[in-house]
Amino acid sequence: MKRGFGSDNHSGISPEILAAIAAANTDHALAYGDDEWCARTEELFRREFGPQAKVYFVFNGTGANVLCIDAMCRSHEAVVCAETAHINVDECGAPQRVVGCRLLTVDTPDGKLTPELVKTRLHGFGFEHHSQPKAISITQSTELGTLYTLDEIRALADLAHSYNMYLHMDGARLANAAVALGCSFKEMSTDLGVDCLSFGGTKNGLLMGESCVILNPALDIDMKYRRKQMTQLCSKMRFIAAQFEAYLGGVQGVQRSAEECKTNDKDVPLWKRNAMHSNAMAQLLKKELQELLSSHSLSLPLTSSHSIKIMYPVQVNSVFVQLPADVWHALQKEYFFYDWDEAANVVRWMCSFDTTEDDIHAFVAALKRHLP
Amino acid sequence: MKRGFGSDNHSGISPEILAAIAAANTDHALAYGDDEWCARTEELFRREFGPQAKVYFVFNGTGANVLCIDAMCRSHEAVVCAETAHINVDECGAPQRVVGCRLLTVDTPDGKLTPELVKTRLHGFGFEHHSQPKAISITQSTELGTLYTLDEIRALADLAHSYNMYLHMDGARLANAAVALGCSFKEMSTDLGVDCLSFGGTKNGLLMGESCVILNPALDIDMKYRRKQMTQLCSKMRFIAAQFEAYLGGVQGVQRSAEECKTNDKDVPLWKRNAMHSNAMAQLLKKELQELLSSHSLSLPLTSSHSIKIMYPVQVNSVFVQLPADVWHALQKEYFFYDWDEAANVVRWMCSFDTTEDDIHAFVAALKRHLP
Amino acid sequence: MKRGFGSDNHSGISPEILAAIAAANTDHALAYGDDEWCARTEELFRREFGPQAKVYFVFNGTGANVLCIDAMCRSHEAVVCAETAHINVDECGAPQRVVGCRLLTVDTPDGKLTPELVKTRLHGFGFEHHSQPKAISITQSTELGTLYTLDEIRALADLAHSYNMYLHMDGARLANAAVALGCSFKEMSTDLGVDCLSFGGTKNGLLMGESCVILNPALDIDMKYRRKQMTQLCSKMRFIAAQFEAYLGGVQGVQRSAEECKTNDKDVPLWKRNAMHSNAMAQLLKKELQELLSSHSLSLPLTSSHSIKIMYPVQVNSVFVQLPADVWHALQKEYFFYDWDEAANVVRWMCSFDTTEDDIHAFVAALKRHLP
Amino acid sequence: MKRGFGSDNHSGISPEILAAIAAANTDHALAYGDDEWCARTEELFRREFGPQAKVYFVFNGTGANVLCIDAMCRSHEAVVCAETAHINVDECGAPQRVVGCRLLTVDTPDGKLTPELVKTRLHGFGFEHHSQPKAISITQSTELGTLYTLDEIRALADLAHSYNMYLHMDGARLANAAVALGCSFKEMSTDLGVDCLSFGGTKNGLLMGESCVILNPALDIDMKYRRKQMTQLCSKMRFIAAQFEAYLGGVQGVQRSAEECKTNDKDVPLWKRNAMHSNAMAQLLKKELQELLSSHSLSLPLTSSHSIKIMYPVQVNSVFVQLPADVWHALQKEYFFYDWDEAANVVRWMCSFDTTEDDIHAFVAALKRHLP
Repeated sequence: MKRGFGSDNHSGISPEILAAIAAANTDHALAYGDDEWCARTEELFRREFGPQAKVYFVFNGTGANVLCIDAMCRSHEAVVCAETAHINVDECGAPQRVVGCRLLTVDTPDGKLTPELVKTRLHGFGFEHHSQPKAISITQSTELGTLYTLDEIRALADLAHSYNMYLHMDGARLANAAVALGCSFKEMSTDLGVDCLSFGGTKNGLLMGESCVILNPALDIDMKYRRKQMTQLCSKMRFIAAQFEAYLGGVQGVQRSAEECKTNDKDVPLWKRNAMHSNAMAQLLKKELQELLSSHSLSLPLTSSHSIKIMYPVQVNSVFVQLPADVWHALQKEYFFYDWDEAANVVRWMCSFDTTEDDIHAFVAALKRHLP
Repeated sequence: MKRGFGSDNHSGISPEILAAIAAANTDHALAYGDDEWCARTEELFRREFGPQAKVYFVFNGTGANVLCIDAMCRSHEAVVCAETAHINVDECGAPQRVVGCRLLTVDTPDGKLTPELVKTRLHGFGFEHHSQPKAISITQSTELGTLYTLDEIRALADLAHSYNMYLHMDGARLANAAVALGCSFKEMSTDLGVDCLSFGGTKNGLLMGESCVILNPALDIDMKYRRKQMTQLCSKMRFIAAQFEAYLGGVQGVQRSAEECKTNDKDVPLWKRNAMHSNAMAQLLKKELQELLSSHSLSLPLTSSHSIKIMYPVQVNSVFVQLPADVWHALQKEYFFYDWDEAANVVRWMCSFDTTEDDIHAFVAALKRHLP
Repeated sequence: MKRGFGSDNHSGISPEILAAIAAANTDHALAYGDDEWCARTEELFRREFGPQAKVYFVFNGTGANVLCIDAMCRSHEAVVCAETAHINVDECGAPQRVVGCRLLTVDTPDGKLTPELVKTRLHGFGFEHHSQPKAISITQSTELGTLYTLDEIRALADLAHSYNMYLHMDGARLANAAVALGCSFKEMSTDLGVDCLSFGGTKNGLLMGESCVILNPALDIDMKYRRKQMTQLCSKMRFIAAQFEAYLGGVQGVQRSAEECKTNDKDVPLWKRNAMHSNAMAQLLKKELQELLSSHSLSLPLTSSHSIKIMYPVQVNSVFVQLPADVWHALQKEYFFYDWDEAANVVRWMCSFDTTEDDIHAFVAALKRHLP
Repeated sequence: MKRGFGSDNHSGISPEILAAIAAANTDHALAYGDDEWCARTEELFRREFGPQAKVYFVFNGTGANVLCIDAMCRSHEAVVCAETAHINVDECGAPQRVVGCRLLTVDTPDGKLTPELVKTRLHGFGFEHHSQPKAISITQSTELGTLYTLDEIRALADLAHSYNMYLHMDGARLANAAVALGCSFKEMSTDLGVDCLSFGGTKNGLLMGESCVILNPALDIDMKYRRKQMTQLCSKMRFIAAQFEAYLGGVQGVQRSAEECKTNDKDVPLWKRNAMHSNAMAQLLKKELQELLSSHSLSLPLTSSHSIKIMYPVQVNSVFVQLPADVWHALQKEYFFYDWDEAANVVRWMCSFDTTEDDIHAFVAALKRHLP
């Protein structure tokens, strides 16, 4: 299938990742994490997230999210999250089945929780008829391609802790967020009071591999049993660890300023290179769309049913666009992508680590052909 | 870590599997199974298990087993299995947590259920205080390295069906069993009335990849949602499918007689080559052990606490041995392996697809050094 | 504690119910439902709900609701309900823990779902990432004291069935609804296509006793095991059945028109007498409030923070009132009642089968004293 | 149905209990436990079990047992219990569904665990593939009518605590045990290190009412939410509390020596009077059986298939008897009772608080008629 804009998990494996897997394929290693790759990579996680960070490798994002929720909540407790949160919408009820807890959802304009929005769900404490709010979960970057600033995250962490609650960060695209904000992972999580996070790799070039990272040691209780019992323990775990080792830049990898990283230097860790690229491609897509629209709008009588509009700030690697149904239907015959809100004619276009500038030119050209 | 006899998941990835992953790493593919590799590999599963076979790729054996149990049982129902069954002993209670059902265990001399043993748990039907027996689960080859004959499987399938129950086969090492019995997968499962099976690849050369194969179409209800909800849906699924495609011999792969496969011909499908090899290595290990013991026993006054004994028939790729505690403790300083029953001084030595004859010579030599 | 308006479960046991328990306390009876009281009362349920009705007695409303949901949904499925639904707000997440499913909530102005509101959650069918909508749950009468008309219920049943979904009715106060609508239970449920319902008694005079009534025989699968496994099987079940027997008017009980029942005739079944009374008391409370407000408003400069307002139509036995915080705080020192929405200064006053006219006079007099 | 020997829950309500319910039926009371009956009865539980005892009233024994297990174990942990334990055999898998944990069962000759038996399941600590043993559960008196001595209980408590585990006591028939051992509830539980217990009333004269009693304050975490979420919160809880108040002898009730209680004095608390009676009836039944057998055996050529034998020591209110199938089948036409082990021709005869001496004479006479 030709490269398109369906999802950042439609792309394959970064060559460096595949090379790391091949390099790890030597002789025997103990299963289930007692191997040298895991040991080295756990050290890398401590480098990236702080010395208290404890990483549990898992298979996929659902596993990471559910394991984090299980670390924070008993079944009679609840997680406050955005209505659009992946844990609410796209896990087929995994938190409910595996943890048995409730999610308390909040409508948001842009996929982002605020203390004010969260507070609307913080009541009923001590009332046994109500699930007890115990965690806030945010997605960084969000499912709508928007970003929390560091201050916004800190405010939510402070709110959570003031209620004796925890803050979870779903970081399936944390790399894209770090690049966009020009900060380290630690600056965006540990330093702000995030208690645990799902740190993803699959959407940014791994074959498959995600992780549950416990930043608050009080949450690090019996985690290995929970991972196993919820079916997320990998036997040949060295092959997940080796991917993350390459992803995080290895032991020689160094922390650099955002400025330094704005080059495509091979010394930049893979997570940063890949995320910088997919973010840049989304900016290019946005720019070309804007140019197309500004040139086109002169001749196009836009009615409400024919409006074309970029829906949210393009901050990471996705562009959400509202456009006439017949246009995106026609475009879907050439390119696979998801309608995000069919009723509102909003679609999602997602850039990936392997998206090329030519891909974008061709895509926008195709769109142009389908405009009225 | 040097190659040893700890587990068949201590070995790495078969070169053919790694090559298949690399070959699948091209352009974009739809996520979650809607790709050409999955389509082709699903066809291979139908070739191997019969036209009605429906495969659901998952990450690991726990996932495959729990998904199979979920297909067969509601929470108020129960699975009859051997006390030593992996689903009972080694899943940290995953069936209980994820499905909520009971396991009704039976003590066995050799890890194998029989109709007579199963019948001891088949009572209380219609009595609401008792979990209702709904499935029998057997492991082929068993956790003790023993094998069910085809007739024995058929008898258990017939028993299950006569009680309106299902038969599940945990086939984490189904390849080793097929090679040992000289039969096809289908002859060992579908043709005998097995309703669903966990078909493994990881222990026989895959990076990671297992599958839940539904053979009885009546069980194929809403499986895709269950797989997702129990956290076992892989996004870049082409990379699991591509492994199984290589494992099963690809589209050009042909079914051959057991006789033909006794060669190391490259035309033999990978699953068969790898399993033939690890089985053969276990036979060699057994042979060298027997020779060592027969030569040694003349001079060794064996008491009950110093007996050395091969515990079960060596039918696939493992050898269970009872030997003096100080001997296996000393040997463990050189080689990692599991004590299987510490109280009884029984240990497990497992051969793998990459075990070499030299590995066995060296291991037996080390053992010899530690004998009194 | 003096009689007040806190809840209809603050009242005790109807004398007829206590007498029925005493009468059933004779010799031995088989446990778990195999007794003559259960047999007779099951017959009464068939009389009230139609010949296909199957009743499962349980302990409480949570049990009835969760058992109904378990009859309709697997864990990967979902129930559409009002945000204010008891199953969403007041079960401490029991559906999530016990069934493992999702609830898809809808904001409503008055606690009532409509087809249009429900349809906003009916999407994602066949998409494995989304919990599959499988049931609609309505509460009759609602948690806000409002009523669905028969046509409204039928429209929701039709909608559900057109999507291959089920309609559940939480009837913790079904008696109050039936009296208010002047219809039989069957006319309000079975005849409209309701698939299962939680039929309550405790809030209308029983000691403790609720029931899960399956109206759609397709849902009557393995229910007795599920009831047991979710801890809702009563051993001395004759004492729940005997209560319902008295409640439903016994075998001599006759179906009468709404007109006939507007008397306090002892021939009227207990459920109807009790519900008629508590509904009438709520009307009296409303009337006295309106009189108080109309006389008082001349002298009271009502600002937005001092408004007094009856929030919803008073259709059954509750009155929701918005009034100044200092007023209801002062009144709470004399009478226990719940604030319903503390932020909005809305409180709930609930009448019961044993509320007297004098109780209402005294309560309104107290309120009057606390008005500015 | 005439009084028989089917179960101690086939009997009805003790008159004192019914009177207590009627007495509590006055005016209004707050629901869910915030009432004066609960307050007084909680005080009684502290008197009976020690000042740290915290009682949670529930509906039935399944609820009490599952709530206790939930207090002790997370889903990845396990409870060691006898194969014959009610929680294993007779809850239809409620612990598995509601808590999600494993039960590690042990075969016993008489329904009683011993430290030696328990230790056979205490392994795999720290090994993530194995459910972690976290609790021992014993039944006092056992399902086979046998008793743990105080020393035996203490030994199991010590064992549990030495492994950082808890000891649960299923006390559905704790009253019968206390009477038989001549000790107080506290001497049999708190004083020996029992961490939590299910304290029953239904089998000894209550309408319905059981309790989960937390003796180890470390376990008293979030219990009210768990009770609610698992569907065991009673709304009109005063009517459970009032039963237990009468059962425990009320505030005027006094602790007396076993000697004093051997009278049928009305000052003796109800639990003791009822249990003394049912225990005494079982002794009478045993005595008459022995007399029958000794007189009969002279003329009866007893073969193994025709043996008549009292299976276990008769220590509380049940008698387990092995007798020829045709005899107990014939007797079952006159009296309902359960076969306990159909294959072994063992049946259970259970005495109740309302069993009379005449009942026993008549029953033994009927048995005599059916003997060959």
